[in-house]
Amino acid sequence: MPAYRAPKRDIDFVLKELLNSEEHFAGLENAGDMNVELMDAILDSGAKFAEEVVAPLNQVGDEEGCQFDDGKVTTPTGYKEAFHQYAANGWQGLSVPESDGGLGLPGSVGLTLTEMIGSASWAWSMYSGLAGAPISCLVNGGTEEQKQRFLPKLLTGEWAGAMCLTEAHCGSDVGMLRTKAVKNSDGSYTLTGTKIFISGGEQDITDNIVHAILARVEGAPEGNKGISLFIAPKFNVNDDGSLGEFNHITAGNIEKKMGLKGNATCVMNYDGAQAFLLGEENRGLDVMFKLMNTARIGTAVQGLAGAEAAFQGALTYANERLQMRSLTGTKNPDGPADPIIVHPDVRRMLMTQKAFTEGSRALCYWLAQLVDVTKFGSDEAKVKEAEDILGLLTPVAKGFCTETGVEVTNLGMQVFGGHGYIQEHGMEQIVRDTRISTVYEGTTGIQALDLIGRKVMGSGGELLRVFTKKIHKFCAGHVDSENMVPFTEVLSGLNKQWGEITMHVGGKAMEDAEEVGSASVDFLMFSGYVTFAYLWAQMADVAQQKIAEGNDDGFYKAKLATAEFYFKRLLPRAQAHAIGAQAGADTVMQLNADEFAF
Amino acid sequence: MPAYRAPKRDIDFVLKELLNSEEHFAGLENAGDMNVELMDAILDSGAKFAEEVVAPLNQVGDEEGCQFDDGKVTTPTGYKEAFHQYAANGWQGLSVPESDGGLGLPGSVGLTLTEMIGSASWAWSMYSGLAGAPISCLVNGGTEEQKQRFLPKLLTGEWAGAMCLTEAHCGSDVGMLRTKAVKNSDGSYTLTGTKIFISGGEQDITDNIVHAILARVEGAPEGNKGISLFIAPKFNVNDDGSLGEFNHITAGNIEKKMGLKGNATCVMNYDGAQAFLLGEENRGLDVMFKLMNTARIGTAVQGLAGAEAAFQGALTYANERLQMRSLTGTKNPDGPADPIIVHPDVRRMLMTQKAFTEGSRALCYWLAQLVDVTKFGSDEAKVKEAEDILGLLTPVAKGFCTETGVEVTNLGMQVFGGHGYIQEHGMEQIVRDTRISTVYEGTTGIQALDLIGRKVMGSGGELLRVFTKKIHKFCAGHVDSENMVPFTEVLSGLNKQWGEITMHVGGKAMEDAEEVGSASVDFLMFSGYVTFAYLWAQMADVAQQKIAEGNDDGFYKAKLATAEFYFKRLLPRAQAHAIGAQAGADTVMQLNADEFAF
Repeated sequence: MPAYRAPKRDIDFVLKELLNSEEHFAGLENAGDMNVELMDAILDSGAKFAEEVVAPLNQVGDEEGCQFDDGKVTTPTGYKEAFHQYAANGWQGLSVPESDGGLGLPGSVGLTLTEMIGSASWAWSMYSGLAGAPISCLVNGGTEEQKQRFLPKLLTGEWAGAMCLTEAHCGSDVGMLRTKAVKNSDGSYTLTGTKIFISGGEQDITDNIVHAILARVEGAPEGNKGISLFIAPKFNVNDDGSLGEFNHITAGNIEKKMGLKGNATCVMNYDGAQAFLLGEENRGLDVMFKLMNTARIGTAVQGLAGAEAAFQGALTYANERLQMRSLTGTKNPDGPADPIIVHPDVRRMLMTQKAFTEGSRALCYWLAQLVDVTKFGSDEAKVKEAEDILGLLTPVAKGFCTETGVEVTNLGMQVFGGHGYIQEHGMEQIVRDTRISTVYEGTTGIQALDLIGRKVMGSGGELLRVFTKKIHKFCAGHVDSENMVPFTEVLSGLNKQWGEITMHVGGKAMEDAEEVGSASVDFLMFSGYVTFAYLWAQMADVAQQKIAEGNDDGFYKAKLATAEFYFKRLLPRAQAHAIGAQAGADTVMQLNADEFAF
Repeated sequence: MPAYRAPKRDIDFVLKELLNSEEHFAGLENAGDMNVELMDAILDSGAKFAEEVVAPLNQVGDEEGCQFDDGKVTTPTGYKEAFHQYAANGWQGLSVPESDGGLGLPGSVGLTLTEMIGSASWAWSMYSGLAGAPISCLVNGGTEEQKQRFLPKLLTGEWAGAMCLTEAHCGSDVGMLRTKAVKNSDGSYTLTGTKIFISGGEQDITDNIVHAILARVEGAPEGNKGISLFIAPKFNVNDDGSLGEFNHITAGNIEKKMGLKGNATCVMNYDGAQAFLLGEENRGLDVMFKLMNTARIGTAVQGLAGAEAAFQGALTYANERLQMRSLTGTKNPDGPADPIIVHPDVRRMLMTQKAFTEGSRALCYWLAQLVDVTKFGSDEAKVKEAEDILGLLTPVAKGFCTETGVEVTNLGMQVFGGHGYIQEHGMEQIVRDTRISTVYEGTTGIQALDLIGRKVMGSGGELLRVFTKKIHKFCAGHVDSENMVPFTEVLSGLNKQWGEITMHVGGKAMEDAEEVGSASVDFLMFSGYVTFAYLWAQMADVAQQKIAEGNDDGFYKAKLATAEFYFKRLLPRAQAHAIGAQAGADTVMQLNADEFAF
């Protein structure tokens, strides 16, 4: 397995040249002392940590996995030490408000760490990542007393956390959950129930684990309207902050999974655990919704992180592996064969990887900036626009960056040929680890329903118009630039088509509610291809400017060539999705359930 | 994991109603006593064996894997017993000529067993499957003495075999192999070298293992022209058939792989092993080429087999899992939610699975019939046509059925949501086991070069014309059938386009040899979509006839609906491949190797 090297040049390009971080930070208010120099410093130490501390843990984590014995979970060698090193860097509280004990920096900075550390080892990164979830729950919904009790040690990394939603009979349909909360006389609640798929629900890394749990208060309404959010520590916390008694929160088992084996996925039993309500009774999903955009963008980053790791591995191998001669003449006369990067089809795979990876980076980082604007922006119109675009593009990013991420990781294996299937090279692990990203935090199908149903149709098309206007403006602003026309002409056509497809599906949905679901994933994928086209057109624009300014170190040439590749060889797929989205519900609804197989 | 159930109704449909086995068998000469009744009997016992004996071994094989200890390989519990049961059924010699001790039946019959047993457990099936390779080598290239020495016990299953091609530094580029053969005074050879990725190279199932090995005779020319094929047993065989001394063939290790863990993938060391030349010196690839079509179709069947297993699992789960309500009103009022098969996007996934799985079955079974014709056909024109179409479509089947097979297995996991990622449900195992199919027996890229370079351009377009004429004839034969026009109109357009793309790429390739490689995989995928369209149009035709005859048990309705789904929602992807194939080599060749990343 080639060593992970943080793609600092491309991260720099996206943050500074595409997204103009300097201007971005200048437009934020009360976002700590954020500036580009501080961002660079965080990036540098994050890159070093990812490369030197986390990357070496990835393969060993997969091989050793987590062990379970009578309620105890043992994590892989080195995981604990790296976690505490991470926390010691202060990164657990990077985006937590200063008033709550954090650094109060905009989340877009933390997202670059999520990418780099995630490429190095997503399984490891989940222990710190999931600790972030109860922290956010407390920040968004906790009382001062709750914050004081739990936040400080979560921020130092003395404790970690877990997010507890899923039950065996309900995943996407969270409204069916059964975990029961009974109110006690002291205002706390007693929780009883079983949750599954709880990442880091139990581990041997921290002294305490703070669980954020969705449960139903006795007598609450059925469905989503009766769900409350609670916080419950594995060990009770005394008033002086010391650990008290065991709180009856036990891991019943850990799952054997396809990948992410270094991360413990626990069955958690709450056998009369004392828990504290966050926010109001029956309004638990309100607090959850506040985390949803960032959690989904964070999962989109898993697609990006896996893609980057797979691209790096494949590129290194393609340059080293000697196999057959180039059809246009020997390129490596001193060797027994040419490196396989001379072969056009190997290059097609690498260019596909590069186009999706760098496109994902541009999208995820841009959305993270928009989250910054919604939190720290002072210009009301900009905040509104950021909210609208985030609403629209968060499910697109989650769905599209993970679906293409899975494709890119598989291409990485494919470049390795048979050697990719062997564990020692690490390529098949990236495929296995990344595969879950299209499933958890809402499957691609759930993202697609959120996009077309809630966001597009639900806003009467308004959210889509906000973005298509932006694209239109970009295209219109480049009509005089001969070099940009090949990009803007295509983009502009797709932009128009996006509205037309929406009208078409919307019209049909008035007659048949199944039309929305039938169109949904194709609509999401079409949206993803157009969104990437917008970003690749912008990247081509920046690259062309840099080249015109005399910059010729190859980076901008490559950026431009990748934009061209994207437009000529990947973007045409959008049309198949356009057709699929408009093919009609009949294509999927005409069979009875018992007619699918005989 | 839902129990595997052989899809006998669909297999019957393909063999009898689509491919008219009765007429097919009638047109063969010297193909044993083949007839439809015998086929049915073999199918029935194969289905029973797959369901009852093999399927229960699949998950345990993945969990236990193979163990390696000082040269010894231990296979999973039950593997050995099932192997001997398989052999006792006489299936190892099903298609071996009667004169060589087999049953002499046409290979198309054996292919149905390959599918069913492969769906049940591909890892297990490789032990018998790989034994078939040295059997074929002996049948095709062995002397009478060699056949008598090795074949009988290979056919009874007392011994198994292994196919030994790959070395660490050469996979696709077999011409680089280094394993050395030195001729002895008695006419035998002494082999020295190391091979990797040898499936079943060592195991504890049979007393002896017969290796078919590619090696280079001392002083032979470099490259493909100096490769010879040898046969070498693990234990020497005395003239009376009893086992003699150990032949210095040792497993150095077994690989840890992504999947197929029940099958031992061995590093094999030949430390002065006595070996026997098959055929002539330096003409080893000639014998290999005779096996290649069937080996590639056999690997295409892995795509089909994995797809079928994933479809069955997903369909069962979709009918059982309750989650959310249908948007058009509650469908399961007595339950807490509706089964997820009510949701259009779940159906889109199931229909995609169904369309690719059944399309693959039609293609693989048809090609197997064409192989029958090339071996047993009496009509010279038909034999020639069968050879041409096989030449063209074998790489298409290998590439397309495995690429879509991988997609279908991933959709199977996706339908399961988070539960698909957990090992106990078996869905992620199907993904892992099937993933290698796009790699071994020639990667998709290698198939694509074979298709466009060797087969299409290499024949001056002739092989393609043979098939497109056939499609044209089919379409022309249905112009008066109103119900068929929606299919034939589209198919006929694509058929014409296939020729145009070929002309376009061929024209450009005159100027730049990289054009062929740049276009290759997109060309293969386009070819696959058109080939499936031809088969789905035929299946729609049969279904419509059956429905017109008053048949209304739902099977034909489903067949027709699946054909429509394929044409409306999957076939449009062909256009993206058409564009990709014609996008030009510049899209992939303009970067220097060091410009892919900075």
